[in-house]
Amino acid sequence: MDTEPTLKNIRQAAERIGSFIHHTPVLTSKSINKICGCELYFKCENLQKVGAFKIRGAANAVMKLKEERIRNGVATHSSGNHAAALALAAKWRNARACVVMPENAPPVKIAAVQGYGAEIRFCLPTLQAREAGLTQVVAKTGATFIHPYNDYDIIEGQGTAALELYNEVPTLETVMVPVGGGGLLSGTAIAIKELNPDIKVIAAEPENADDAYRSFQQKKLIPVKNPDTVADGLRTSLGDKTFAIIIKRVDEIITVTESSIIEAMRMVWERMKILIEPSSAVPLAAVLADPAKFYDLKIGIILSGGNVDLNELPF
Amino acid sequence: MDTEPTLKNIRQAAERIGSFIHHTPVLTSKSINKICGCELYFKCENLQKVGAFKIRGAANAVMKLKEERIRNGVATHSSGNHAAALALAAKWRNARACVVMPENAPPVKIAAVQGYGAEIRFCLPTLQAREAGLTQVVAKTGATFIHPYNDYDIIEGQGTAALELYNEVPTLETVMVPVGGGGLLSGTAIAIKELNPDIKVIAAEPENADDAYRSFQQKKLIPVKNPDTVADGLRTSLGDKTFAIIIKRVDEIITVTESSIIEAMRMVWERMKILIEPSSAVPLAAVLADPAKFYDLKIGIILSGGNVDLNELPF
Repeated sequence: MDTEPTLKNIRQAAERIGSFIHHTPVLTSKSINKICGCELYFKCENLQKVGAFKIRGAANAVMKLKEERIRNGVATHSSGNHAAALALAAKWRNARACVVMPENAPPVKIAAVQGYGAEIRFCLPTLQAREAGLTQVVAKTGATFIHPYNDYDIIEGQGTAALELYNEVPTLETVMVPVGGGGLLSGTAIAIKELNPDIKVIAAEPENADDAYRSFQQKKLIPVKNPDTVADGLRTSLGDKTFAIIIKRVDEIITVTESSIIEAMRMVWERMKILIEPSSAVPLAAVLADPAKFYDLKIGIILSGGNVDLNELPF
Repeated sequence: MDTEPTLKNIRQAAERIGSFIHHTPVLTSKSINKICGCELYFKCENLQKVGAFKIRGAANAVMKLKEERIRNGVATHSSGNHAAALALAAKWRNARACVVMPENAPPVKIAAVQGYGAEIRFCLPTLQAREAGLTQVVAKTGATFIHPYNDYDIIEGQGTAALELYNEVPTLETVMVPVGGGGLLSGTAIAIKELNPDIKVIAAEPENADDAYRSFQQKKLIPVKNPDTVADGLRTSLGDKTFAIIIKRVDEIITVTESSIIEAMRMVWERMKILIEPSSAVPLAAVLADPAKFYDLKIGIILSGGNVDLNELPF
């Protein structure tokens, strides 16, 4: 797809992937609402297949590929949830998936990607090495590269989470999502602003990886290099496509501290009894940091994923 | 109530407490089913109010108290989930709750009980001191003692979890629950055996706290003293009432090792993205230890609770 997706495209994506993914529940917590002074509706993509919303975009992109473009498989470079998602989506189409992963990727993530049947090529842990590895794979195999976020089909798929959330709680006044590369934020902003332009779309970002915040303020793309944040899903920077969508539709980007992310994550674990990864906790951290701003509002938060290494918990 | 509860009583309890408690979801996991070679249906009492099934029994017992028996409040001794459950149930009837707790109880549990508005009396960490403390409280305040499990009203309430599970998955062939004092097991066995006597009711117990197993084998009550198991909810021994119900209705009691409990707990956290406490993992540990025995069966497992101290994880 060559033009920015619309709500109509997101609705079509929802139909396309509907039978492959989970319709995840929206959970609430009285005790967290009491602490925050507002009504929070958590869309649980941590309970999604592969443990993250990423399967929505990957499934949509893979399902849309014409036969001749998938014949030689799909490829990507990723150390995270997109790799596992692409591997699973490829399996659904009986296609090969090849993932270039840094050799220092956590064993648990390597095992997940292998578990979904993807082939792994290891490389040095730099963006350069990853891109070079991917170019080699594509040249050699003829596989189609599926970018983790700077891709309209991916964005379209990610937007289906917000669509489901809105359908379940149409009276929301604000929707908050974390922002890394901007795929989830772009899809959410397109869906929500077309459904009801009065609903605020607010992104939350670790201040240690605040490229989206700075790009948004200065109205130009300002990537960061190797940011250090516990929210490992948000270390990537916006791409040109996601930036263009976000700058037009998003109301605000808020940055939060590392300690507030860990506190919010722990609060969800303890009070809601669900596992979320640090990236998922970033919007709640923003609410906790400024409860007056969100007082009495009905807020939807997309919990982006639940893949954590239990040997490396931040608490 | 002076006679053993029946399914009819459990149905009445379900109506009595229905508007106060959560109707918890039944979750499944393809990947755990694949590992086990059977179909598991997890009844998520970890997502129940106070984070455990205990609120079912406490709510039922408190709701049934006549005005003159609740006027001076309710009391119990407990370091665990029953204390929090009784505190909350008392609040619903605007009654006082007093809980005798060992002075070495985890701060997180003390805070939970206080959070629900109960008064706490600390005592030395022995059963003797707890019982003496309770006798004092009852003598001084006139409060009604609500036993955590050896009480027909409690058993009736706990049976409502199995009733909900059966209503959602009536084709179950086996139902498995952990056994500590036997309240949950008694209520489950009464409900399930009257609903369909062909469904097997199997209890699972840590081999380090195997009083129920030994009592069941030798057909007489054999309590254990201060057993050492990671499954802190299962350190109590059967009472005379729960033993009498269990010996007549339960098909089998299986014991499991400490390491298998931790492995099963971790599997649920990682694969299902939900927090369960070690006690909840005991039935799954029994399945994992002998997959041939359970091959291809449809098995309901009650995940009894999700209250864990994140500072003291066993992995």
